[in-house]
Order: sequence, then structure tokens, then C-alpha cells
Amino acid sequence: MSKVLAQLESIKFHLQYVGQLDSTLNQSLYQHVDMGMVEMMLEQAARFSDEFLLELAERGDRVGCSLDKGGVTLPAGTDQAYQAWCELGFPALSLSESQGGLGVPLTVQLAVQELIDGANLAFGMLCINQRCATKALLGAVSQEPVEQWLAGLADGSLAATIAISEPQAGSDVGRIATRATSSPEGGWTLNGSKIWISYGDHDATDNILHLVLARTAGGGTRGLSLFAVPKRLDDEDNGVSVLRLEEKMGLHASPTCVLALENTRGYLIGEEGRGLVNLFPMMNAMRQAVATQGAAVANAATLQALDYAGTRPQGGRADAPARPIIEHADVSRMLLEMTAKSELLRALSLRTASYEDRAACCEDDDADNARDWQQLAGLLLPVAKTLSAEWGFEVANQGIQVLGGYGYTSDYPMERMARDVRVGSIYEGTSGIQALDFAHRKLLGDQLGAMQRLLALIEADLAGSQADNPLRAPLEQILSIYREVLRCIQQPDWLAGGGAYPLLRLSGVLLCCWNGVTLYQAAHDDSEYQRRVRQAMDLFSVGLAAEAESWAAKVSLKRYSLSAQ
Amino acid sequence: MSKVLAQLESIKFHLQYVGQLDSTLNQSLYQHVDMGMVEMMLEQAARFSDEFLLELAERGDRVGCSLDKGGVTLPAGTDQAYQAWCELGFPALSLSESQGGLGVPLTVQLAVQELIDGANLAFGMLCINQRCATKALLGAVSQEPVEQWLAGLADGSLAATIAISEPQAGSDVGRIATRATSSPEGGWTLNGSKIWISYGDHDATDNILHLVLARTAGGGTRGLSLFAVPKRLDDEDNGVSVLRLEEKMGLHASPTCVLALENTRGYLIGEEGRGLVNLFPMMNAMRQAVATQGAAVANAATLQALDYAGTRPQGGRADAPARPIIEHADVSRMLLEMTAKSELLRALSLRTASYEDRAACCEDDDADNARDWQQLAGLLLPVAKTLSAEWGFEVANQGIQVLGGYGYTSDYPMERMARDVRVGSIYEGTSGIQALDFAHRKLLGDQLGAMQRLLALIEADLAGSQADNPLRAPLEQILSIYREVLRCIQQPDWLAGGGAYPLLRLSGVLLCCWNGVTLYQAAHDDSEYQRRVRQAMDLFSVGLAAEAESWAAKVSLKRYSLSAQ
Repeated sequence: MSKVLAQLESIKFHLQYVGQLDSTLNQSLYQHVDMGMVEMMLEQAARFSDEFLLELAERGDRVGCSLDKGGVTLPAGTDQAYQAWCELGFPALSLSESQGGLGVPLTVQLAVQELIDGANLAFGMLCINQRCATKALLGAVSQEPVEQWLAGLADGSLAATIAISEPQAGSDVGRIATRATSSPEGGWTLNGSKIWISYGDHDATDNILHLVLARTAGGGTRGLSLFAVPKRLDDEDNGVSVLRLEEKMGLHASPTCVLALENTRGYLIGEEGRGLVNLFPMMNAMRQAVATQGAAVANAATLQALDYAGTRPQGGRADAPARPIIEHADVSRMLLEMTAKSELLRALSLRTASYEDRAACCEDDDADNARDWQQLAGLLLPVAKTLSAEWGFEVANQGIQVLGGYGYTSDYPMERMARDVRVGSIYEGTSGIQALDFAHRKLLGDQLGAMQRLLALIEADLAGSQADNPLRAPLEQILSIYREVLRCIQQPDWLAGGGAYPLLRLSGVLLCCWNGVTLYQAAHDDSEYQRRVRQAMDLFSVGLAAEAESWAAKVSLKRYSLSAQ
Repeated sequence: MSKVLAQLESIKFHLQYVGQLDSTLNQSLYQHVDMGMVEMMLEQAARFSDEFLLELAERGDRVGCSLDKGGVTLPAGTDQAYQAWCELGFPALSLSESQGGLGVPLTVQLAVQELIDGANLAFGMLCINQRCATKALLGAVSQEPVEQWLAGLADGSLAATIAISEPQAGSDVGRIATRATSSPEGGWTLNGSKIWISYGDHDATDNILHLVLARTAGGGTRGLSLFAVPKRLDDEDNGVSVLRLEEKMGLHASPTCVLALENTRGYLIGEEGRGLVNLFPMMNAMRQAVATQGAAVANAATLQALDYAGTRPQGGRADAPARPIIEHADVSRMLLEMTAKSELLRALSLRTASYEDRAACCEDDDADNARDWQQLAGLLLPVAKTLSAEWGFEVANQGIQVLGGYGYTSDYPMERMARDVRVGSIYEGTSGIQALDFAHRKLLGDQLGAMQRLLALIEADLAGSQADNPLRAPLEQILSIYREVLRCIQQPDWLAGGGAYPLLRLSGVLLCCWNGVTLYQAAHDDSEYQRRVRQAMDLFSVGLAAEAESWAAKVSLKRYSLSAQ
């Protein structure tokens, strides 16, 4: 069976037991979606990946993109794949029916994304940009030509980018210098340059909508506004040009552009001076997408490694046929560690998305509840994004190890997957930025309100867990370690130390242990997959509380000064 | 200052305090070497790297090697660099004066290797092969034409390879099928093929000596013998041809060859049927070299990241100039974690080598002592090799993180260093193989004899450490955890579980904690470097005992079965 199709069993299992999809689909918001339709979509996405994306991934990595005067050319075959993707209706997944979309829950959108990204992360970047850009536009939907753009994003004829960074303004967006000035006759003109723009130009669509942060006033982030900037306007170029393509460790088929904006017409989205706030819906959707990327690569690498290990003969008595390496204890260990991380990343990403779905399903008169679920999703998001990016890379890297010398060569996709996914802990906010967001905004800024609600959910699940669940005892210990740590971070000046990242990682251990309890409990049958999940959770439980203690100790890391005295 | 020259301070510090070079040079074996000579060599090596290797590393990664009918062509400029290397006399470092070499201690050989590998790992592979090949030949020195080969290796006119793997025989050398048959007129003829042969062919030297394991009888490893196989013999090709070059994740400038041997003349080295035993001196030297590779890349990546972080402005109030990112707590944390691992890898590699030096310095009538030091080196070696490979990769990877988006591009050497060093945990015995060697041969096979001697050394250092040493308390705790674990691994059937690798990693924590005590104590002055070492050891101590507990729990990992029921 194709390795993409083989993911379906696990994805459906997660949608059911972690993503709570049954209950989401029972809500009135999703009355037009049923489980049969979801399963059909997933199967279509898997078959599409299988047919169009696997071979393209290998070739795209090898040949990369090229830039000439006409702009950026993607690897041959990308546009056919993209046309097929559009014909299947996938760009329309996220928009509601009234906006010309299919309006499926976020958990389902991400399940589809996973099937694409596990096969071809570079291609998936194009789709993610497009899906997430709609989030930035929804607040300005009544405005001319936004509706038209949404229609283009929904049918796939319009691609999108998110354009934030500049050479002097990476993580530090307050230093953005691209200027937008309002013309006397109305409208805005942008001048400046942007770096790290994924799919900043390409030949898969005729037009591209850039969502650009630009300066309309002085004063750090408060002087920034959000603009929609089409590549082409009224069938003419709008002054956006590609200065160069970056040479990168991976994602060779995803063009990373330096863009120049010269007297470019832009459309203000939302209020002036609230650019960051208005961009956040898109940015958060991108971060959630990065979480899914990590889960996708991890799961694809795990299936690849299992497949290899089951068929590569090596070892045993020299006078007998060699045994498949999956039978060696150390290889089993590696495969189960990969399984544990892959499953737990998928669960963490879907758990986060399911809270978004719950928020979306709340009726208008239930705004408090909607806000609560939204906050929980926001609390999990920086952890999910960071852990997925890091573990996604670690799992692919362990996959290289399972394959040995072959894993280090491009005969197998493993080393490419590792190179591709590595950027996940850099873009859409580095791990350090996520850790600050988590500690500063999501915990301390909220006086631990959402965190206390989360801990109550975890404790309820702990209380309801079965005695034979191997993650039950670790979860109890880790919860107690965690409560202690929450006291510590409320000390004055704690944030000035180096403890934010260890706190985020400790939170990752807590969340994964919790999700592991759920997965172990859900994996009750004797299928090969569910048996493997139980074994993986059993192995994951070993030494976990001690690992949490090690992270907890680092939460009170003092401030070291390396700069000149 | 050049980043290579900047390594000298740290390397000399380690040679003195960890490598015990003063005391080694006092031995009669090294009466021809003094500290001034060592320092001059190190400076020459650093200047050579700076001048010849840094630019070549970047270009070599980009253009790679090519194969045509004439054989393998290395990136342009490699042969000039290699000629300069030979003119400086570096190929002669390892051979004794009587063999035409410079005869310096192993610690010094490795310090030179580090200066090369930190700048250009791919070039370094050529030098490592050559240096280590001498080890395989020393047991057969009286044999024709061995002396001549040694002279060629010493002046650099002869390159070398180690040729073990075959498609069906990776880690499982007992399945090697390349056959050697003795001709009626004397001499041996080899037929078969070998894979993963680093520098299996190239244009840096006219001739290459392949050290080949081949089958002279049936019966697994006992039917293997070691042969020296020159590429050219009496000015004619000797039937060795390159079938293909591997496309790899990294080390693009180091050609990895599939070699065919067709009626190739080989010279038996040592006794028939003892091929593995006879190859071990070379193999162990290669493993030690891999340990040094990891330390080299880690230290180079750390200096690179420190340099970047000290000059990249980002963050702070928008109305003030941005501050260098080294001032951000999370960046300091990353840089000190990198420093800790880099320093500890260098220490572990040099500690291992210093035991080799001690063994070599023992007089003939002191064979017991020589064997004891040799065993200690053998005990540390699989840990040093594995940890260096894994941490070397982790440190380079964290370097990417410090550089953010720039780290992911080939504008900086970081991502190349990560790709290059990744193979370290695969070649010369995977981490899984090292873990088995450590647990099965070095610990259980020796009834923990050498380990008990090592623990006594560690305890003596603990007793002599100062009260303010931040690693003192963790070392005490970890020693007690370790003694408990040693009891556990003596249970029958322990080795059938998945605990060998966790045991090796736990041992790595113990050894690094011990070396950290030494480094902290040695770093007593107020130089920027020594201050950074103290800070790094302080940070490294946080949560370390809990990390050891986590590994210790995994040592009793049960056996999981993933194969079909």
C-alpha cells in the first residue's frame, strides 16, 4: 500500500479520539459536513499526494526553482499538480460555504494538509499560504476587492504570501521600514523590500496576493499597518519584483524570495496602525500549519523507516539468512521512539485545532465560551508549533539513523525530509519567540487563567484514566512538578532569565504525557497500528517524569551575560 | 581574528588540563617533542586551514565531486590545498621517527585534526584515512612493500581508504562476500564490490592504498582476512574501478564510492582469517577520529554563532538602536549550551586519546599498565565516538537556530556543517553498534573491570574537587545512579532489551559531568574564554542529575517486538 494511504488509519483515529470530530460535526455550523464526506476528502488527498507529489518531491529537491526576468519558475510538473489540487476543490476547504468554500472544521483542513506535507513539504507551502491568507481578509470582507480575492483563493486561481521580514527586522518586527503612503487620490503606495517570502513569486498562478506589513507611522509595531498587495493589478505588473532566491538547506522547490516593492499599490486591510493585530489571524493559522508540518514529516518518516526496517535483512548467525532489522532491539527502540513522537505531535496539533473548532461552533450568545476555547487554543499553539518543528526534525533525523548509510543518501527521502522540516523552528516565529509568547502573553499576561482551565481538563482526564495506563503515574508526577514551576515563574524578574524556552519544553512534556494517556486508552484493538501505538506510549513513559524534572530545573535558569563586561 | 586561530586558546587549554600533554611529553618516547614544537604545529595547522580550507569548504559543498572514465575529480583547489598540507609535513604526524614520521602524541594529532575539520570536514576525511591506515600496517611492517607504503603515507604521496561495507553487509560484516583467492604463484587476487568508500578514488594523489576486508574462507567474520590493495601496481591499474558516487546529505566534497574489484592483486596483512582483528587498530583510530570530527564541528559552530550573535542587532526599544542578540537571555542560553557541549566533546575526545598516549608511553616491562590504559581508552571510545557525532550535529543545528533564517541558508556555513557532520553517527559503526560494543565487549565482557578502574579515577577527582564547583553535586548523584545501573545490567538477558543505547548515553552524561568538573576547575582566570567555560559548566549542571535519571530509567527498557506476530 502507498505510504500516504497508510496514514489514513492513524489520521482517522486521531480525528476521532483527539480531534473530537464526531462532536464537532454535530454542531449546527457543520450541518453540511458528515463523516462520509470527510473520509472521502482524506482519501482523495492521499491519492492526490501519491499520484502527484511523491516523485515531484524528490525531483523538486534536486532541481529547485529558477529566477529569470520573467520571474520564478517552479520545478516542472508543479503546475499540473497544482491544477489537479484545485480541480479537487482543496483550496476551498477553509472558507465557509457562503464565501464559496467547503467550510470544513480546522481539524479536517489540517488532516488534509498532513497528507500533502508528509509527501511534499515544499508543495504544501503553496497551499498553506493560500489557506491562511483567507484569515487575514475575513475582517475586511465587505471591502472592495476583498470578496473577489477570496473567490480567487477559494478556487485556487490566486496564490498568497505573508510578507513581514526585512534585513534589519527579523524577529524584531518593530523595525520594519517598508513604507506605505496614502495617495492624494485615495489608496496606498508601498516602497521597500521584504525577505524570506515563501512562494514570493512563481508560475503556478497568474496572480499572487501579498499580505504585507508596512509602516504608516513611526513608533515600533504601533506604526505598522496591514496591506494586501496584488502582484498584478488590472492586468499590469504592480511593482513587485524578485531580487533574488535564497539558497537553502532544504525546501528547494519552495522559492524563498527577496522582494522589492516599488511604487506598489496596496489595499489597507483593517484599521491603520493595527497591522500586527490584523495579521495575527493569518500568523496564528500559519503557526498552526507549521505544527501540522512537523507532525506530517514525523509520521511520514516513521512509516518510511518502519517499511525499510521490515525489509532490510542484516544480522543474526552468518550461516542463516539475515533477519529484518526491525527485529533488533535497538532498531525497535528507535522505531517506537519515532512512533511515539509522531503520534504525539499529531495529537497535539489536532488537540489545538479542536479547541479552535469548539470556539467556532459556539453560538453568538455564547461569546464567553468561545473566548475560553480560543484562549486554550492560543495557549497550546506556541507549544505545538515549537515541539512539532523540533521533534519533526528529530524524528526525520532518527529515520536517517534507522536507514544507516542509505539514510544519509538521496536514494531515500529521509535526509530531504530532515532538511525540509528544519526551518519549522525558525519561520513564523522562532522557538525563542514562541517561548516568549507562551510565557509572557499566554501565561503571565493572562494571570495563568487559561492554564488553570487547561490543568483542570488534564486532571479530569487523569482521574478518568485506567489503572493500567503506563502514562498515568508519570502524568500525576509531572502535574505536580508543573504546579511547582508555575509558582516559580510568578517571581518578579523571572522572565529576564533564560527559563522561557525550558518552560515551553516542560509544557510540551506535560501535554504529550496527557495526550499519550488519551492515545493509549483509545488504542484498544489488536490491529498492527493500535498495538504499535500502545507499545510506543509504554516506551515513552519510561524516564518521562525525570525528563520533566530536568526541564523544570532549567526553568529557573539564571541570566548569563556573554557580552563584553 | 580568524575563527580557526581563535580555537588555539581553547585547544591548548584542553591539551594541558585534560590531555595531560605536559606529562606525556616528559616521557622518553616523546623526548624529540616539546611544547614549543607542538604550539608551532598547531599554529601552522590553523593558518593552513584559514588560508586553504575555509573557502574550499563552501565551494566544495556546492560543486561536489565528479566521476568520469578517468576516475573521480575533487573540487578545484583541493589538490593545491593537499600539496600544501603535505609540504607542511602533516601526513607524517602519526608515524614514529624511525618510520619517517614526526611521532607526536595522539592528543596532538587530534588537535591538528580538529583545526582542519572545523574548517572543512570533507577535506579532513582524506587526511584521516591516511593517518589511520598506518595503524593497520604497523603489524606487518617487515613485509614487502609495507615499508614503502608507510613512507608514501608519511610524505602524503599515497592516500588510503578503509573498505568494509557491501550492499548486503553494512553493520553485519559477517556477510562480506568479496573473495580473495591465493594464486598458485603466490599472492592473492580479490573480486567483489565495496560500498561507502570515502575517497575511494580521487585526483589528489597518484596512488591509493585500500585496506580491504575480504573472504578467504566461509563462516562469518572468522573467514575474513585483511588485504592491502593498491589502486595502481607497477604503474598499471590494479582492477579497482569506481561504479558510482553516492549523492549525500553532506560531505559533498568527500567522494563516497562504490568500488568494484576485478582480479585485483591484494597483499595479505597479518594472518589469514584474522581480518577483523587486524583491522581493529585502524578502525579504532577511525572511531577516535570521528569523535574529533564532532568536537571540531561543534567548536567551529560555537565560535561562528558567538561571532554572529555579537554583531547581529535585533530587539530592544524601537526608538533606540537595536542591541546585539547575544544580549538576549534565550540567545545566551543557546550559546552557552553550545559552548558546554563543544568543550565537553573536546575534553572527552582528548581524555580518550590521553589514555592511548599513556599506554604508548609505558616501558616494555610495564605491559600490565599499558594494557590497563589501553582498556580505559577502549572503554571511553564508543561513548566519545557516539556522543561527539550526535552532539556535533546538535550543536551545529543549534547554531542554525542562533542565526535564524540566515542559518538555514548557505550564506553561512552552519547548515553545511550540520549536514556534513550528520554521518558521524553512521559510519565507522553506527551508534547502535557502538552501544553494543560498549555494553557487551567493554563492560560485560570485561566483568566491569576497566569500568571499576574508571569509576575510581572519577571518585578521586570528585574528592579533590572544590566545594564551589557547580558540577560536584551532580557528579556525586550521577555516580550513585550509575552504580545502581551497573547492577541492573548484570541481570541475565539484560542485553536482549533496548537498554544498550540508553546505557551509553547515561555513560556520556557521567563522563561529561566528570570532565566538566575538570574544566571548571581549570578555567580559573578572567579571560573571556575561561569565563565562558565557567558559565557554560554552570549552566550544564542545571537539571543534569535528573537527565541522568531519565537515561537510567531507559537502561532497563524491555524488549518490544514490532515484527509480525
